[in-house]
Amino acid sequence: MRIVITGGAGFLGRRLAHAIAEHGSMTGQDGQKQQVRELVLVDTHALATETVKGVTITSVAADICDRDVMAQLITDDTDSVYHLAAIVSGQAEVDFDLGYRVNLDGTRTLLELCRAVSGKIKFITTSSVAAYGGDMPDVLADNFAQMPTTSYGGQKAISEILVNDYSRKGFIDGRALRLPTIIVRPGKPNAAASSFFSSIFREPLQGERAVCPVNEEVSVWIMSPRRVIQCLIHAHELVLEQAAYRSLTLPGISITVGAMIEALERAGGKEAVQRIDWKFDPKISDIATGWPGAFEATRALEMGFRADNSIDDIIQAFIEDDMPRS
Amino acid sequence: MRIVITGGAGFLGRRLAHAIAEHGSMTGQDGQKQQVRELVLVDTHALATETVKGVTITSVAADICDRDVMAQLITDDTDSVYHLAAIVSGQAEVDFDLGYRVNLDGTRTLLELCRAVSGKIKFITTSSVAAYGGDMPDVLADNFAQMPTTSYGGQKAISEILVNDYSRKGFIDGRALRLPTIIVRPGKPNAAASSFFSSIFREPLQGERAVCPVNEEVSVWIMSPRRVIQCLIHAHELVLEQAAYRSLTLPGISITVGAMIEALERAGGKEAVQRIDWKFDPKISDIATGWPGAFEATRALEMGFRADNSIDDIIQAFIEDDMPRS
Repeated sequence: MRIVITGGAGFLGRRLAHAIAEHGSMTGQDGQKQQVRELVLVDTHALATETVKGVTITSVAADICDRDVMAQLITDDTDSVYHLAAIVSGQAEVDFDLGYRVNLDGTRTLLELCRAVSGKIKFITTSSVAAYGGDMPDVLADNFAQMPTTSYGGQKAISEILVNDYSRKGFIDGRALRLPTIIVRPGKPNAAASSFFSSIFREPLQGERAVCPVNEEVSVWIMSPRRVIQCLIHAHELVLEQAAYRSLTLPGISITVGAMIEALERAGGKEAVQRIDWKFDPKISDIATGWPGAFEATRALEMGFRADNSIDDIIQAFIEDDMPRS
Repeated sequence: MRIVITGGAGFLGRRLAHAIAEHGSMTGQDGQKQQVRELVLVDTHALATETVKGVTITSVAADICDRDVMAQLITDDTDSVYHLAAIVSGQAEVDFDLGYRVNLDGTRTLLELCRAVSGKIKFITTSSVAAYGGDMPDVLADNFAQMPTTSYGGQKAISEILVNDYSRKGFIDGRALRLPTIIVRPGKPNAAASSFFSSIFREPLQGERAVCPVNEEVSVWIMSPRRVIQCLIHAHELVLEQAAYRSLTLPGISITVGAMIEALERAGGKEAVQRIDWKFDPKISDIATGWPGAFEATRALEMGFRADNSIDDIIQAFIEDDMPRS
């Protein structure tokens, strides 16, 4: 089995590749378990080749919008594509054309390449709760309208429609997962407007200062990296009818920034909380408060996707998986 | 004032041009009434130039996907664009690539050209109730999710997202109106899956036979050509905040095919009803029953859009406007 992961050099892509390699076998296009033999990570930069549990993880630097280059990677013997590559929310808002080029045209290029191969590729892509916006109730049902108020959210909502239409026509076997805000991300802050939701844990727990640009009342729908990797694998394994609706919101935890800070105190003490600088940023606050804070996520729960147990578990997972051992 | 209408040689485009010319003045980008001086109809074929109430109606044959050609038409002195051109539902289902090329890429090309000019063009486009699909309640609220089950519906839903995002960014001043099924269309049946909804009135009232490919129970959300022209003009005249949500479902009448047939009998007698051949077509029935039959349309009503009074009024309008005088 050959699986391609775009955005594969990112932290979710690398973890997903490792988790799939550890998993060993995955459900193929015929519904049967097959041994994974090759994982190909595609990103703007390449990583070193690895072998994990006998699975070769190769890494390629390529522009997903370059059809000729991507046609070399999405081959007739490719079973599945995880499409995680994206221009993040903050950057797509600043650079309108780049966001549409990568998040819309890039996705379409990949879908067309999947359509062109002989098999029916499983195509799992990550949408976002940012695909919602506008006037919303406190808790969103699965059939609530997407009225995105950022370019990134719009591009994600469009990608969902494309994945559904390509699946309905039988060109791919697609799944579009609306990811909660993933915390705690390791590494450095990025250009996502949601980046601070990780910073306010990651930096203070490691003795560094972090900025919180929104008020304590802001609600957010969150999921841990561990759990989202499980969901990405679970989405691959599901067997769906061709006519099935392919978009779903993953089950998260709804939590306010204030409750996050209380959890930070439980994990890192008052010192950790004091490392947060409250610097209100109206631009980031506008974007973050424009996202929905809670969902029913009924369909995803019925399909066997699971939320994290608690914010404390999420922080503990970060400490175990990503904190440098002292 | 200069107004460009794509799909302008179609029956709605021509009527809209005449109605605007009769209207005389329209609200410009500055919110002030201005004299309309030029209307430009763009379509796959050109009509003869007309002058109506002193307004020149020119007609150009052009491919809306041809950026260079369209750049000659969407000029710095263009105030408004009505974008009505589309590959219809049945054809977009048969020719996947053509549907995406015209309904998605064509719309994007026009939006980019509007973005490139100096003013902020009013951009009014027609979406459709076909942008809804999947599991739906009997009556849809304005915030019900779009889960299109045709390529045409998907392309319309995507166009709505684009019009909203381009408006939010201040590149255009857009409005996307989800049109009910427009009946009674004059002329010949076309490749729209909804074409029979007009045929079952138009042909029998003129002594010809028509085919009804669905059951009497099918519900449909309808509007007359007269009323939709009023709505298209009203949409142009509205003054909206930049952040306002730009998509809305027009208020229609919800009616079953059975109730339509009763109205046909009231207008044309039993003879008219006997001219209908009931030939069930599973493909058309699947598409038509996949569309929603009724909407609340609360936002549109609040914004001053109005439905027709009754199916009998709709038939009467057809008889007055479109039936050849005997």
